[in-house]
Amino acid sequence: MKKKGFTDHLEIIGIDHFPEVKEGDDLTDLFFKALEEKREKLEDGDAIVFTSKIISKSEGRVVDLSGVKIGSDAERIAKETDKDPRIVQLILNETKEIVRTEKNIILVETKHGFVCANAGVDESNVEEGKAVLLPEDPQRSASRLKKEIEERSGEEISVLISDSFGRAFRDGVTGICIGVSGITALLDRRGEEDRFGKIARITKEAVADEICAAANLVIGEFKEGIPIAIVRGLKLKRSEGDIKEVLFNREDDLFR
Amino acid sequence: MKKKGFTDHLEIIGIDHFPEVKEGDDLTDLFFKALEEKREKLEDGDAIVFTSKIISKSEGRVVDLSGVKIGSDAERIAKETDKDPRIVQLILNETKEIVRTEKNIILVETKHGFVCANAGVDESNVEEGKAVLLPEDPQRSASRLKKEIEERSGEEISVLISDSFGRAFRDGVTGICIGVSGITALLDRRGEEDRFGKIARITKEAVADEICAAANLVIGEFKEGIPIAIVRGLKLKRSEGDIKEVLFNREDDLFR
Repeated sequence: MKKKGFTDHLEIIGIDHFPEVKEGDDLTDLFFKALEEKREKLEDGDAIVFTSKIISKSEGRVVDLSGVKIGSDAERIAKETDKDPRIVQLILNETKEIVRTEKNIILVETKHGFVCANAGVDESNVEEGKAVLLPEDPQRSASRLKKEIEERSGEEISVLISDSFGRAFRDGVTGICIGVSGITALLDRRGEEDRFGKIARITKEAVADEICAAANLVIGEFKEGIPIAIVRGLKLKRSEGDIKEVLFNREDDLFR
Repeated sequence: MKKKGFTDHLEIIGIDHFPEVKEGDDLTDLFFKALEEKREKLEDGDAIVFTSKIISKSEGRVVDLSGVKIGSDAERIAKETDKDPRIVQLILNETKEIVRTEKNIILVETKHGFVCANAGVDESNVEEGKAVLLPEDPQRSASRLKKEIEERSGEEISVLISDSFGRAFRDGVTGICIGVSGITALLDRRGEEDRFGKIARITKEAVADEICAAANLVIGEFKEGIPIAIVRGLKLKRSEGDIKEVLFNREDDLFR
């Protein structure tokens, strides 16, 4: 097994000039066209990070706010949090459990099992009066894209789907992973020896999240319009991969 | 102001063949020697990420456990958490406030203001019977290293000091920043327009943490021995920088 750290050089390549994505668009096809325009070729081991927004748009996860039917829970929570009741209803539709509410923020566990603000429901980078939901099953989307891209390129690659989440105890958002296929989400280094020959006791590294954080340094949600980045040079073992690897069982979560 | 996203290419270069660091070692000097051995030159805008462990070692933040005097609080908490009472005493010495305790983990706010497990006290990659503390003032260490490296290279660079912290709601550690000089820790994009001309309301991006997460993909605490990585190609505005930018005021922290 090749391990992380045996690489001493990585590249992160932003895929720009990507068109605005609409429902039904073939992302694999758009990706290869953008690669070609950039005169870039995939290499074995590339990790391709897609921002969740283009996945959601291609999968039709854009909601027209004027059509949202507001229930009494949404009405009440909207008042408490000073949010648009239509947005609150969309958040509740995506939610397994509300963790906490504050002014303008509803911290939830989504149906996927992600703990994040506002269930990832987002009004940025979409037409006025619309909102974008997280992909329905980003793990499945990652697997499908990986399969399609491998078939077309002939290279063994991995696909990660990223979003920007806030964190506990620190201000600001960072790129994190919500779906991964082709590499492990969590690199388990327990049992490896350190430089002094001692056995590591508790080092599980969330490499999928680190890769998405790295990609986020070139992926831009603003006018730059870079929705995809390739992280090249990782020497991670091939693995089915599943973002559930990083999701705690409720009883193991020190923070709830 | 150049903004993130106007770069579409980053490189991450691991500085390997670094010697084991001892108290009093001149890290700037060791860094330039390692660069030379690698036939690598600094470039304007490089972000240089140092793992906290070599900062701590050079600053003498290694403690011989046999000399630790154990107080009654440490004795009690050691029993509750099933930890070595000497380690618990070291953790308490570094702690402003205990946030929560669990088997084998004491989640604290350190005197620096970082919320992390075991106050960052670590027994890995140090001789048996010793433990490494976080640098006493990693923000000061980052500023000093930046100044020294700029003077010697003539390039405008930034220095970040990284550690690996666990996160709320997700398993595994990721690289995060505990000291930054030369760029901002938190990129405030509020007021910028998205692709649809709408104004972003709440997008503050923790770029220093993303840079440290990215660097962590090549920095290795195990036998690889890569304690430093250069992140090249960022187009971030020059800034004094202070890791306090990402630390919440207690009342703004949704998670406490």
